[in-house]
Amino acid sequence: MSKYFQATASAPVNIACIKYWGKRDTKLILPTNSSLSVTLSQDHLRSTTTSRADPSFTEDTIWLNGKLDEIKPGGRLSTCIDAMRRAREEVEDADPKAEKFSQCKVHICSYNNFPTAAGLASSASGFAALVYSLAKLYQLPASPKDLSIIARQGSGSACRSLFGGFVAWREGTAPDGSDSFAEQVAPEIAWSDMHALICVVSDDKKGTSSTAGMQRTVETSTLFEQRKAVVPGRMRAITEAIHKRDFDQFAEITMKDSNSFHAVALDTDPPIFYLNDVSRAIIAIVTEYNRVSLDAGGKRKAAYTFDAGPNAVIYAPKENIKEIVEMIVEYFPQESFKDTFALFGKEDVRGRLVRGFNTGVAKRFEKGAVKTLIHTSVGDGPRVRGSEEGLLGENGLPKDLAQ
Amino acid sequence: MSKYFQATASAPVNIACIKYWGKRDTKLILPTNSSLSVTLSQDHLRSTTTSRADPSFTEDTIWLNGKLDEIKPGGRLSTCIDAMRRAREEVEDADPKAEKFSQCKVHICSYNNFPTAAGLASSASGFAALVYSLAKLYQLPASPKDLSIIARQGSGSACRSLFGGFVAWREGTAPDGSDSFAEQVAPEIAWSDMHALICVVSDDKKGTSSTAGMQRTVETSTLFEQRKAVVPGRMRAITEAIHKRDFDQFAEITMKDSNSFHAVALDTDPPIFYLNDVSRAIIAIVTEYNRVSLDAGGKRKAAYTFDAGPNAVIYAPKENIKEIVEMIVEYFPQESFKDTFALFGKEDVRGRLVRGFNTGVAKRFEKGAVKTLIHTSVGDGPRVRGSEEGLLGENGLPKDLAQ
Repeated sequence: MSKYFQATASAPVNIACIKYWGKRDTKLILPTNSSLSVTLSQDHLRSTTTSRADPSFTEDTIWLNGKLDEIKPGGRLSTCIDAMRRAREEVEDADPKAEKFSQCKVHICSYNNFPTAAGLASSASGFAALVYSLAKLYQLPASPKDLSIIARQGSGSACRSLFGGFVAWREGTAPDGSDSFAEQVAPEIAWSDMHALICVVSDDKKGTSSTAGMQRTVETSTLFEQRKAVVPGRMRAITEAIHKRDFDQFAEITMKDSNSFHAVALDTDPPIFYLNDVSRAIIAIVTEYNRVSLDAGGKRKAAYTFDAGPNAVIYAPKENIKEIVEMIVEYFPQESFKDTFALFGKEDVRGRLVRGFNTGVAKRFEKGAVKTLIHTSVGDGPRVRGSEEGLLGENGLPKDLAQ
Repeated sequence: MSKYFQATASAPVNIACIKYWGKRDTKLILPTNSSLSVTLSQDHLRSTTTSRADPSFTEDTIWLNGKLDEIKPGGRLSTCIDAMRRAREEVEDADPKAEKFSQCKVHICSYNNFPTAAGLASSASGFAALVYSLAKLYQLPASPKDLSIIARQGSGSACRSLFGGFVAWREGTAPDGSDSFAEQVAPEIAWSDMHALICVVSDDKKGTSSTAGMQRTVETSTLFEQRKAVVPGRMRAITEAIHKRDFDQFAEITMKDSNSFHAVALDTDPPIFYLNDVSRAIIAIVTEYNRVSLDAGGKRKAAYTFDAGPNAVIYAPKENIKEIVEMIVEYFPQESFKDTFALFGKEDVRGRLVRGFNTGVAKRFEKGAVKTLIHTSVGDGPRVRGSEEGLLGENGLPKDLAQ
């Protein structure tokens, strides 16, 4: 057994409030507009990655969720691994005392703790965990911002998972992408009662991949230029909302931007639909929930947002989550709450609507329309994991496979 | 029994290819953009209206589909009736020999021959029939263009039902609406094999009314200005396509504009959805049908368009309709074809897909998802009906009620 170097890290999922949709450079993954997301707690949803460099390894190798994946030359995985290796070379070149293992091949093993079937994008947390674990393996002096530039080239939105809290991805202007990075707008502790309820929605049909879809939008949507023009104002306004912890404003912008993104998807030729009838119903329900509050002189109490799929993420202050779960359960009866990471007692979850709620805004669906509910909150950035959490066995293969 | 004056007329439904969505003047019903539609044959879908002026009548009265309706002062019905009466006054003032009955109250009785449940907008054909029957009653020298300006004030898209064939509604610029009229772009005989298949889609929920919805779009959508900027080019291009009978270009523009309209509806705050999962599936099916043809070096063979509801209207050259019906029936099994106005033999309608069609683009739905299919074609403008088709009895009440 040769001496090896290893690090394990986990990285969080992030869900954008101002959506990333469209690249101005598809190779470097440079976006057509800035975006902003909330990082979700790794206590509930995370990708965990172990990276090991060992002189005895003969090939860079990666396993994703226990399955061997291909590292295509020039591909996204290769781009990230190569960039990290080069950074290690620089460390070794600059410091004669630094251990020399940049030329070792690496084995990388990564798991998501949420089922693929949940329909949650895992590329953001996955690439963030990959890059972060390599940064720890190579003991790089790189800042999260530096790492975000590398993770961005793996999967655009991955750059935002290098930070906790509220995170902006600046579109930048440099052709080489050097100013297209993520940065924290506010840490999670600044607004820790920002909670999220993910409604995992069943869909009959696999939608258009976001990579293919967003470029079709760039090429064919006649409304897309206008969306690009609208985003900067939203970025400023939501940043202000976050700094002021103004949920009402945060909610208004988040919902408008989700709708704007799905509008340009629909304006694409041929059109792209990610929202289905269940998504529509959730929008109608959240809209009605807010209406009741607004009509009583109050503020918005929840904000929906949808990525490139039918799942809803409902952001809300912690105090509203119980009401929201009851409301969702009223329209979408649940088989069980086993996957619901309850941050409140879950025994008594019954369908219930707030006073004055117009029940006619949606029909009551059958069980299974919303497959499961995941309750979580804003959370921190990537974490270094102890060696006991390493995913590779002594033989350099995933522990699962090694059994 | 006093001497009375009476006229009966029918008017067609029209379905826009370039959509009307948004008013710049809500009272005069002046649109934010021009629009263009195909007039559908009255042999299948029509509103029929009898108008009678009788010195013995004590009040202007209207029955719609056998139900007494209110003529609110300053309302849309009142606006149209008053304008027509004023035009009659001018005739009487100008010609001393003209019979004097402009001051008589009128009874108006109107029926649609299609069920309200079909979800087809009846206000366009209804107001066109109303205005046309009054024009005949009052023996006005008004041109269809003149009448379109009056019908427009009843229901915007009604102005387009004053003409057969392919009809543009020019947005105009005059504040008084005098240049916001409809005109024929091409008569029905110029492209008579333009057929239409209406897929009547079941919906769980009544959508937002178009009157309320379009103004919310004008007020809140950030993409709407861009849509307005795109429409003029589409108007020119589709007019050219119609003149050249270029179905491929007609189809491309029609589908894009439908999607653009639904995109700005979705970009509205709160968002407006008219398309449901069945509508989405029809879009995917028509897209795939065209793809098969395009990939084989051919042209687009069908064009979907959706108004403010989930119903699809599929335009296609006559020769493709059988294939399209078979394709729709493959995904949307029908209970019966009793409502299908078959322009081809209907006995052997079986689900079937063209060679090379990717069946996975949509799931197969249960019976009832598409409630019925209506097959029709481009048709002529309003028709005068014989007195034997009059809808009012000798007593001045609808014949149905009089029994």
